[in-house]
Amino acid sequence: MTIERSKSNAEAGDLIQLVGLSYKSYIFVLEHGKELHTHRGVVKHDELIGLPWGSQIFSHIGSPFFLLQPSLPDLIKNTPRVTQILYPKDIGQILLTMGIGPGTVVIEAGTGSGGLTTALAYAVGKTGRVISYENRSEHQAKARKNIERIGLADRVDFKVRDIREGFDETNVDCVFLDIANSYEFTGQARAALKPGGYFGSILPTTNQVVKLLTELRRNQYAFIDVCEVSLRYFKPEPLRFRPTDRMVAHTGFLIFGRPIIIDQERADKKLLMETGAISVVPDEEENTEDIVE
Amino acid sequence: MTIERSKSNAEAGDLIQLVGLSYKSYIFVLEHGKELHTHRGVVKHDELIGLPWGSQIFSHIGSPFFLLQPSLPDLIKNTPRVTQILYPKDIGQILLTMGIGPGTVVIEAGTGSGGLTTALAYAVGKTGRVISYENRSEHQAKARKNIERIGLADRVDFKVRDIREGFDETNVDCVFLDIANSYEFTGQARAALKPGGYFGSILPTTNQVVKLLTELRRNQYAFIDVCEVSLRYFKPEPLRFRPTDRMVAHTGFLIFGRPIIIDQERADKKLLMETGAISVVPDEEENTEDIVE
Amino acid sequence: MTIERSKSNAEAGDLIQLVGLSYKSYIFVLEHGKELHTHRGVVKHDELIGLPWGSQIFSHIGSPFFLLQPSLPDLIKNTPRVTQILYPKDIGQILLTMGIGPGTVVIEAGTGSGGLTTALAYAVGKTGRVISYENRSEHQAKARKNIERIGLADRVDFKVRDIREGFDETNVDCVFLDIANSYEFTGQARAALKPGGYFGSILPTTNQVVKLLTELRRNQYAFIDVCEVSLRYFKPEPLRFRPTDRMVAHTGFLIFGRPIIIDQERADKKLLMETGAISVVPDEEENTEDIVE
Amino acid sequence: MTIERSKSNAEAGDLIQLVGLSYKSYIFVLEHGKELHTHRGVVKHDELIGLPWGSQIFSHIGSPFFLLQPSLPDLIKNTPRVTQILYPKDIGQILLTMGIGPGTVVIEAGTGSGGLTTALAYAVGKTGRVISYENRSEHQAKARKNIERIGLADRVDFKVRDIREGFDETNVDCVFLDIANSYEFTGQARAALKPGGYFGSILPTTNQVVKLLTELRRNQYAFIDVCEVSLRYFKPEPLRFRPTDRMVAHTGFLIFGRPIIIDQERADKKLLMETGAISVVPDEEENTEDIVE
Repeated sequence: MTIERSKSNAEAGDLIQLVGLSYKSYIFVLEHGKELHTHRGVVKHDELIGLPWGSQIFSHIGSPFFLLQPSLPDLIKNTPRVTQILYPKDIGQILLTMGIGPGTVVIEAGTGSGGLTTALAYAVGKTGRVISYENRSEHQAKARKNIERIGLADRVDFKVRDIREGFDETNVDCVFLDIANSYEFTGQARAALKPGGYFGSILPTTNQVVKLLTELRRNQYAFIDVCEVSLRYFKPEPLRFRPTDRMVAHTGFLIFGRPIIIDQERADKKLLMETGAISVVPDEEENTEDIVE
Repeated sequence: MTIERSKSNAEAGDLIQLVGLSYKSYIFVLEHGKELHTHRGVVKHDELIGLPWGSQIFSHIGSPFFLLQPSLPDLIKNTPRVTQILYPKDIGQILLTMGIGPGTVVIEAGTGSGGLTTALAYAVGKTGRVISYENRSEHQAKARKNIERIGLADRVDFKVRDIREGFDETNVDCVFLDIANSYEFTGQARAALKPGGYFGSILPTTNQVVKLLTELRRNQYAFIDVCEVSLRYFKPEPLRFRPTDRMVAHTGFLIFGRPIIIDQERADKKLLMETGAISVVPDEEENTEDIVE
Repeated sequence: MTIERSKSNAEAGDLIQLVGLSYKSYIFVLEHGKELHTHRGVVKHDELIGLPWGSQIFSHIGSPFFLLQPSLPDLIKNTPRVTQILYPKDIGQILLTMGIGPGTVVIEAGTGSGGLTTALAYAVGKTGRVISYENRSEHQAKARKNIERIGLADRVDFKVRDIREGFDETNVDCVFLDIANSYEFTGQARAALKPGGYFGSILPTTNQVVKLLTELRRNQYAFIDVCEVSLRYFKPEPLRFRPTDRMVAHTGFLIFGRPIIIDQERADKKLLMETGAISVVPDEEENTEDIVE
Repeated sequence: MTIERSKSNAEAGDLIQLVGLSYKSYIFVLEHGKELHTHRGVVKHDELIGLPWGSQIFSHIGSPFFLLQPSLPDLIKNTPRVTQILYPKDIGQILLTMGIGPGTVVIEAGTGSGGLTTALAYAVGKTGRVISYENRSEHQAKARKNIERIGLADRVDFKVRDIREGFDETNVDCVFLDIANSYEFTGQARAALKPGGYFGSILPTTNQVVKLLTELRRNQYAFIDVCEVSLRYFKPEPLRFRPTDRMVAHTGFLIFGRPIIIDQERADKKLLMETGAISVVPDEEENTEDIVE
C-alpha cells in the first residue's frame, strides 16, 4: 500500500501531499523525472525524493509548501467530486459505531464520488472487503480511478447495479446506504446482512428519516439510533482562544440499526420498545397531545 | 480474535453481549457448562451456543435478552472504570483524524481504564501496534486484564512508566496523550513521532488547551486543529421525530498537530501562520483590541 | 408594580427572592409580622425589611440566604407547573424576534402554567396588553393566581375558550401559540393579527413543524423562520474554564411568520419563495433526488 | 414613537421597511413627495401611504417589495456599522436574563454602532432610561443619528467618556459592557449598580472571560453565569425539512453577575461557592489533576 506508515522519508512510488499557501493542497504519487505544475510555480519530484516528511520545500519561484503523507481526512476531501461527499466527522462516527476495522466485510451503496469508499477501504485493511454498488457507471468509474490512484483498489469490489434487485452477498458485517431513498432498501440490506450486523444510512431531511424509521421497524431492525455529529473548530491562538466564527450546521442525520430475530409469539414488548424496534406506547410519553397522525 | 465478523451463529469461545431490559448489558466469553447470573435471572451458556446473532432469549425466570456480538462502542463503554473514559464520539474523530487503521503504530499515555486502548487495538489490527504508557501500575493491570478478556492484548505493549523520561519508541505514526498535563510532554512526543506524524490530545478546560497550544508551537508542530465533537441523539419515533431532551455538552477539547521541520532561515511566515505553527499577526484579526496580554 | 427597579432596599410589599443552599430559592411578598418556613429554618420578614438587596441573611438555625429582587428568568422558572413551561432561552428569542416590548398587544394560547404569560406581561408594560386563552379553566386559574401574586395581572386578560371558535380581538401585534396542534389555528391567528404582524409557535417534534409550515403557507404567511435556540453554560471557574458536562438538548422548534397580502395576479414568485411563502422550486435545490413524496 | 403597533396601514411619518429580492431591505421614514431609489427601480412614498402592512408593491420597473413595519431584529441588523454589532440571538438572552423591560434604567458601554442601544431603548420604553457611554465621539455621533432616525433617541443619554473615570449614575438596575477589556471595569460597574442589580458583558475569547471571572469575584459579584447562545435555522420546506447547511458558530461568551454584599465574618462559604462568588474547592471536582496553575 502506498501510504506506508513506517518510514520517515519520501520515496519514489509514495503517495504524497504538498500543502501550499491559502490551504491549497496537492496529492499525487512521487515519480522520478516528473514535475508538479501549480499556480505558484513548478516543483520537481526529484527534489522531494529522499526528504523527510514535514519538510518545507519551495517551487521554482520560491513559493513554500510542506511535504507530507496525506492524512485520511485529506484523502477523503480530495476525492474528485461527482456528487456530494460525506464529511470526515460523519465517517468517523460511522466507522466507530459500526465497528468497521481490519477484516470487516462491508457493502456500500452508492459509490458516489468514492469518499466513503476510500475510508472504508482504509479501515478494513487487506483482510477485509468493501463491496461498492452504484447505478451510474460513469460515477463509479471516476471513483474507482481515484481509489486506484491512492492504492486501495484491491480491497474494493465495484459493482454497477440497481440495488432494487438486491445485493449479491449474504452474511456481511455491515451495509451502509448513502442514497436519498435508502428507506426503500431495508429489505435488501437485511437479506445481505448477517443477523445482528450493522445497517447505517445518512439522510439530509427529517422527512426521509421518518420514512426510514418506519421501514426499519417493518423489517425487524432494533438498536436503532439516530444522531447528528457536530464539529466545532477553535482558532488555535493561545492568547485569543475562541471558536471559529462559522461552522457546518448540517450534513445529514445518521441512522443505525441491527437486524434482529423476533419470535412473534414470545417476543417481549418492553425490550422491543427500549431497543427502538417498536413504537413507544403513547401514554408513556410526556407529550400525549401529539400522537394522533 | 474473538469478535470474528464472518459468522452468523454464536459458538463457544466467542465474545458475546446480552442486552436486557432497562438497557442493562453483559459482555462475556461463551463457555460450555457456565451460567450467567443477573438480577433478572440465570442464563445458561449452553442455551446460547449455536443460536444466530440477534436472537431473543430468556432467563430462567422469563426475562428477555438479545444475543449479539458486542459493538465497538459497547466494548469501549463496558470498560471497568478506574478513571474517566473517552467517549466513542471523540474516539471516532481521533481515529479518523489521525488515520489510525490497519498497520498503524501508535503510542498512548496514559492507559487509564483502557477504553481508548481497546479502540486503538481494534483499529490497528494484527499488523499494527499499540504501545500504552501509564505511571499507575494498578490501573494498567486492570486495563490489561480487560483487553485480554476481549482478545486484543497481543496487539498492545503495556508499559508502566513516568513519561517525563520519554518514550522508548521512535518513528511511530501517532502519539495520543490522554492526560491532564499533556502540555508538558510535547517534546517527548516529538522525539517519538516520525516527522509529519500525528500528535493528539484531549483536555477538558480551555486553560489547559491554551498551555498545550503554546507548547506545540514551541516544539515546531503545525497543522494544529482544535475542535469539539457534539453528538445529538434523536428519539427514533417516526410519528414524533425529535431530538432527545438532554445531551452530553462537553467531554473535552480535541487538539491535533503534526511535527514539521522548520528551516529558520528559509521558512515562510505566511505558511507557518496558515498552518497554525506561529501566531496570526494581530493586525490581521478583526478584533485588535484584544491582543495585549 | 412590585418589582420596582429604582430602589436599593427591601420594603414591605416588595416581591423578593431568597436564594439558599443547594440552589433552593423562595419568591414571595414581604409583609410585616410574617415568617418564611423552610427546610433550613425560619426567616422573619421583619428582619429583611430595610436590608439592601444582595445582603446575606440567616435563618434561625444559621442557614444562609441571599436577599434579592427576583430575576425575570427566576420568575418564569418559579411558576407552579401544571404543564411543561417554556424555557427562558426560548422566551428571550420569542420576545426579540416578535418585537414584544412596551405597548405591544399580544395574544397567547394556551395559558398553560403561565410562564410565558409572566414574561409577556413583564415586557409589554402598563401600556401593552396580553390576552391569554386556555380551554382548561383550572389551569388558567392557577396561572392567574401566580401572576396576581407577582403583581402583573392588571396587564393580562384571561379567557377560558376553545380557540377553534377564534379569538375576540383583531388587529393585534402578535399571536403566540404554545399548543401541540398549533397548525390547526393559523387561520384564527391570521384573523386576529394585523397585516404584517407576528405569528409564533413552539413545537417539540419535526412532524408537527412540517404540518405547521404547510398551514402557514396555505394561509399566506411569509417571512417564515424555523429555529432552535441552544444555551450552553460554562463553569465560571477562571483556572478551569470549561463548558458544563450536560445540557438541555431540545425544548422545541420555534416557528415564526408574518401574514402578508398576496395579490395572486401580480404576486412575484421569486420574492414569495425567498420569504418562505411558497416552496422553493425543486430543481433549484442541490439535492434533487429527494423531492418526490 | 414611530413603530406604533396598533395600526394596520402605513402613514406619513411611519418608520417602514421594504423587503425586496435577494433579501435586500430598506428601512426609512415615509414622507409625502419623496422617492426611494434602489438598484431595482424607484418607489414613490405616496404610493405606499395608506397601504396595509404586508402589501406587495412594485418599483417603477416592476421589481417587487413587501411593505412592513421593521422588526426589532431588522432594526438591530440595519444599524450602520462602525464596529461589530451584537447579534439578536445574544440580545434576546441579555434582555431576558437581566430583566430589561419597561422602566429599567440601564448603562451600556461602549455605544459602538448602537445596535444594542436600539434594543435597550426599545425594551425600556418611555418610562425607562438608557445611558450609553463611548470614548470615540465620532462612533457615538453615528449611533445617535441612527437612533434618532428610528425615533428612540428621547430614551437615551449619550455620553462621550473614558469609563475608566467611572459612571455618573448610581443605583441603576443594569450595566452592560460590550468592550474588549470589560474586566478592567467591574469596580466602576459595581459603583453604578444598585445592590443585587445586573452586570453583563460579552467577550469573544476564553482568555478574556477568564480575566473577567477573576475580577468579578474580586469585586464581590455572585450569581455568575457564563453561557453561549446558538441559533440554528431550518429550511422552512415542509417536504424537505432540515437544518440549514451552515450557521454562526460563535459571536461571544455572555457573562452575567450580580453585586452582592459579603459580610466577611459571617459569610457562608458553601453558598458563595454555589453562587459562583468564590472558587469551588478543588477536591470537590471530578478532575483533580487539573487544578495546579
